[in-house]
Amino acid sequence: MELLITYDVETTTPAGRRRLRHVAQACETYGVRVQKSVFEIVMSEAQLLLLRHRLLDIIHPRFDSIRVYRLPAGSFANAAHLGHSPPAGHDTPLIF
Amino acid sequence: MELLITYDVETTTPAGRRRLRHVAQACETYGVRVQKSVFEIVMSEAQLLLLRHRLLDIIHPRFDSIRVYRLPAGSFANAAHLGHSPPAGHDTPLIF
Repeated sequence: MELLITYDVETTTPAGRRRLRHVAQACETYGVRVQKSVFEIVMSEAQLLLLRHRLLDIIHPRFDSIRVYRLPAGSFANAAHLGHSPPAGHDTPLIF
Repeated sequence: MELLITYDVETTTPAGRRRLRHVAQACETYGVRVQKSVFEIVMSEAQLLLLRHRLLDIIHPRFDSIRVYRLPAGSFANAAHLGHSPPAGHDTPLIF
Protein backbone atom coordinates (compact mmCIF):
# COMPACT_ATOMS: atom_id res chain seq x y z
CA MET A 1 0.00 0.00 0.00
CA GLU A 2 1.03 3.61 -0.54
CA LEU A 3 1.43 5.79 2.53
CA LEU A 4 2.27 9.41 2.96
CA ILE A 5 3.99 10.16 6.26
CA THR A 6 4.33 13.77 7.36
CA TYR A 7 5.80 14.97 10.62
CA ASP A 8 6.55 17.95 12.80
CA VAL A 9 9.23 17.31 15.39
CA GLU A 10 10.12 20.03 17.87
CA THR A 11 13.73 21.07 17.18
CA THR A 12 14.48 23.76 19.75
CA THR A 13 16.42 21.29 21.90
CA PRO A 14 19.26 18.86 21.14
CA ALA A 15 16.93 16.03 22.16
CA GLY A 16 14.34 17.26 19.65
CA ARG A 17 16.90 17.50 16.85
CA ARG A 18 18.01 13.91 17.69
CA ARG A 19 14.36 12.76 17.52
CA LEU A 20 14.02 14.47 14.14
CA ARG A 21 17.02 12.58 12.77
CA HIS A 22 15.72 9.29 14.15
CA VAL A 23 12.23 9.81 12.67
CA ALA A 24 13.79 10.55 9.27
CA GLN A 25 16.07 7.52 9.53
CA ALA A 26 13.12 5.29 10.43
CA CYS A 27 11.14 6.54 7.42
CA GLU A 28 14.18 6.29 5.12
CA THR A 29 14.30 2.58 5.90
CA TYR A 30 11.07 2.15 3.97
CA GLY A 31 10.50 5.05 1.62
CA VAL A 32 11.43 8.14 -0.36
CA ARG A 33 11.85 11.58 1.18
CA VAL A 34 10.04 14.06 -1.07
CA GLN A 35 10.24 17.06 1.23
CA LYS A 36 12.03 17.79 4.49
CA SER A 37 9.37 16.13 6.59
CA VAL A 38 7.32 14.25 4.03
CA PHE A 39 7.92 10.63 2.97
CA GLU A 40 6.27 8.54 0.32
CA ILE A 41 6.32 4.93 1.48
CA VAL A 42 5.16 1.70 -0.13
CA MET A 43 4.82 -0.98 2.52
CA SER A 44 2.73 -3.83 3.90
CA GLU A 45 0.42 -3.69 6.93
CA ALA A 46 2.98 -5.71 8.89
CA GLN A 47 5.77 -3.27 8.04
CA LEU A 48 3.49 -0.38 8.99
CA LEU A 49 2.98 -1.87 12.43
CA LEU A 50 6.75 -2.16 12.87
CA LEU A 51 7.33 1.41 11.69
CA ARG A 52 4.50 2.76 13.85
CA HIS A 53 5.98 1.02 16.89
CA ARG A 54 9.45 2.41 16.10
CA LEU A 55 8.12 5.95 15.60
CA LEU A 56 6.14 5.83 18.86
CA ASP A 57 9.39 4.90 20.60
CA ILE A 58 11.17 7.88 19.07
CA ILE A 59 8.78 10.82 19.31
CA HIS A 60 7.78 12.92 22.29
CA PRO A 61 4.00 12.63 22.52
CA ARG A 62 3.52 16.25 23.64
CA PHE A 63 5.94 18.01 21.30
CA ASP A 64 6.01 15.93 18.13
CA SER A 65 3.35 15.04 15.55
CA ILE A 66 3.30 12.33 12.85
CA ARG A 67 0.46 11.85 10.41
CA VAL A 68 0.01 8.75 8.24
CA TYR A 69 -2.24 8.94 5.18
CA ARG A 70 -3.22 5.84 3.26
CA LEU A 71 -3.32 6.59 -0.44
CA PRO A 72 -4.77 4.56 -3.29
CA ALA A 73 -2.29 2.87 -5.60
CA GLY A 74 -0.88 5.33 -8.11
CA SER A 75 -1.24 8.38 -5.86
CA PHE A 76 2.48 9.06 -5.78
CA ALA A 77 2.62 9.01 -9.56
CA ASN A 78 -0.35 11.39 -9.73
CA ALA A 79 0.88 13.84 -7.13
CA ALA A 80 1.24 17.33 -8.53
CA HIS A 81 4.36 19.29 -7.84
CA LEU A 82 5.16 23.00 -7.96
CA GLY A 83 8.66 24.41 -7.61
CA HIS A 84 11.88 22.48 -7.22
CA SER A 85 11.66 18.74 -7.09
CA PRO A 86 13.72 16.25 -5.07
CA PRO A 87 15.21 13.26 -6.88
CA ALA A 88 11.97 11.43 -7.65
CA GLY A 89 12.14 7.89 -6.31
CA HIS A 90 8.77 7.30 -8.00
CA ASP A 91 7.81 8.25 -11.57
CA THR A 92 6.01 11.40 -10.38
CA PRO A 93 4.92 13.85 -13.07
CA LEU A 94 6.50 17.25 -12.36
CA ILE A 95 3.72 19.70 -13.22
CA PHE A 96 -0.05 19.08 -13.38
CA MET B 1 -12.35 16.54 -3.47
CA GLU B 2 -9.88 16.04 -0.64
CA LEU B 3 -6.35 17.33 -1.16
CA LEU B 4 -3.26 17.17 0.97
CA ILE B 5 -0.87 20.04 0.34
CA THR B 6 2.64 19.83 1.75
CA TYR B 7 5.39 22.36 1.24
CA ASP B 8 9.00 23.21 1.90
CA VAL B 9 9.78 26.90 1.55
CA GLU B 10 13.33 28.10 1.98
CA THR B 11 13.43 30.33 5.06
CA THR B 12 17.05 31.49 5.33
CA THR B 13 16.16 34.89 3.88
CA PRO B 14 13.50 37.49 4.76
CA ALA B 15 12.04 36.98 1.28
CA GLY B 16 11.79 33.24 1.94
CA ARG B 17 10.08 33.76 5.28
CA ARG B 18 7.61 36.13 3.57
CA ARG B 19 6.90 33.45 0.91
CA LEU B 20 6.33 30.93 3.68
CA ARG B 21 3.73 33.18 5.31
CA HIS B 22 2.02 33.81 1.98
CA VAL B 23 1.88 30.09 1.10
CA ALA B 24 0.33 29.35 4.50
CA GLN B 25 -2.16 32.20 4.11
CA ALA B 26 -3.14 30.96 0.64
CA CYS B 27 -3.75 27.44 1.98
CA GLU B 28 -5.59 28.75 5.06
CA THR B 29 -8.10 30.34 2.71
CA TYR B 30 -9.30 26.87 1.77
CA GLY B 31 -8.32 24.34 4.40
CA VAL B 32 -7.07 23.15 7.77
CA ARG B 33 -3.47 23.28 8.87
CA VAL B 34 -2.62 19.93 10.48
CA GLN B 35 1.11 20.39 10.74
CA LYS B 36 3.45 23.33 10.17
CA SER B 37 3.61 22.78 6.43
CA VAL B 38 0.77 20.35 5.82
CA PHE B 39 -2.80 21.35 4.96
CA GLU B 40 -5.89 19.24 4.51
CA ILE B 41 -8.10 20.95 1.96
CA VAL B 42 -11.54 20.13 0.56
CA MET B 43 -12.09 22.03 -2.65
CA SER B 44 -13.38 21.91 -6.24
CA GLU B 45 -11.25 21.59 -9.39
CA ALA B 46 -11.95 25.26 -10.14
CA GLN B 47 -10.74 26.32 -6.70
CA LEU B 48 -7.66 24.17 -7.12
CA LEU B 49 -6.78 25.97 -10.33
CA LEU B 50 -7.07 29.31 -8.51
CA LEU B 51 -4.98 28.11 -5.58
CA ARG B 52 -2.36 26.58 -7.88
CA HIS B 53 -2.09 29.86 -9.77
CA ARG B 54 -1.76 31.82 -6.53
CA LEU B 55 0.90 29.45 -5.15
CA LEU B 56 2.91 29.60 -8.37
CA ASP B 57 2.90 33.38 -8.04
CA ILE B 58 4.21 33.13 -4.48
CA ILE B 59 6.93 30.48 -4.49
CA HIS B 60 10.47 30.62 -5.82
CA PRO B 61 10.72 27.80 -8.37
CA ARG B 62 14.32 26.93 -7.46
CA PHE B 63 14.11 27.12 -3.66
CA ASP B 64 10.57 26.14 -2.75
CA SER B 65 8.59 22.94 -3.21
CA ILE B 66 4.83 22.29 -2.99
CA ARG B 67 3.24 18.88 -3.42
CA VAL B 68 -0.47 18.30 -3.95
CA TYR B 69 -1.93 14.85 -3.30
CA ARG B 70 -5.47 13.96 -4.32
CA LEU B 71 -7.03 11.73 -1.71
CA PRO B 72 -10.21 9.69 -1.88
CA ALA B 73 -13.16 10.98 0.14
CA GLY B 74 -12.80 10.09 3.79
CA SER B 75 -9.00 10.06 3.77
CA PHE B 76 -8.74 12.88 6.29
CA ALA B 77 -11.03 11.04 8.68
CA ASN B 78 -8.95 7.87 8.27
CA ALA B 79 -5.56 9.50 8.67
CA ALA B 80 -3.63 8.03 11.55
CA HIS B 81 -1.92 10.31 14.01
CA LEU B 82 0.89 9.80 16.49
CA GLY B 83 1.92 12.37 19.08
CA HIS B 84 0.31 15.72 19.75
CA SER B 85 -2.59 16.72 17.56
CA PRO B 86 -3.58 20.17 16.26
CA PRO B 87 -7.20 21.26 16.73
CA ALA B 88 -8.79 18.83 14.31
CA GLY B 89 -10.86 20.69 11.76
CA HIS B 90 -12.01 17.30 10.48
CA ASP B 91 -13.22 14.41 12.63
CA THR B 92 -9.82 12.67 12.44
CA PRO B 93 -9.32 9.69 14.73
CA LEU B 94 -6.31 10.31 16.99
CA ILE B 95 -4.59 6.93 17.19
CA PHE B 96 -4.81 3.97 14.75
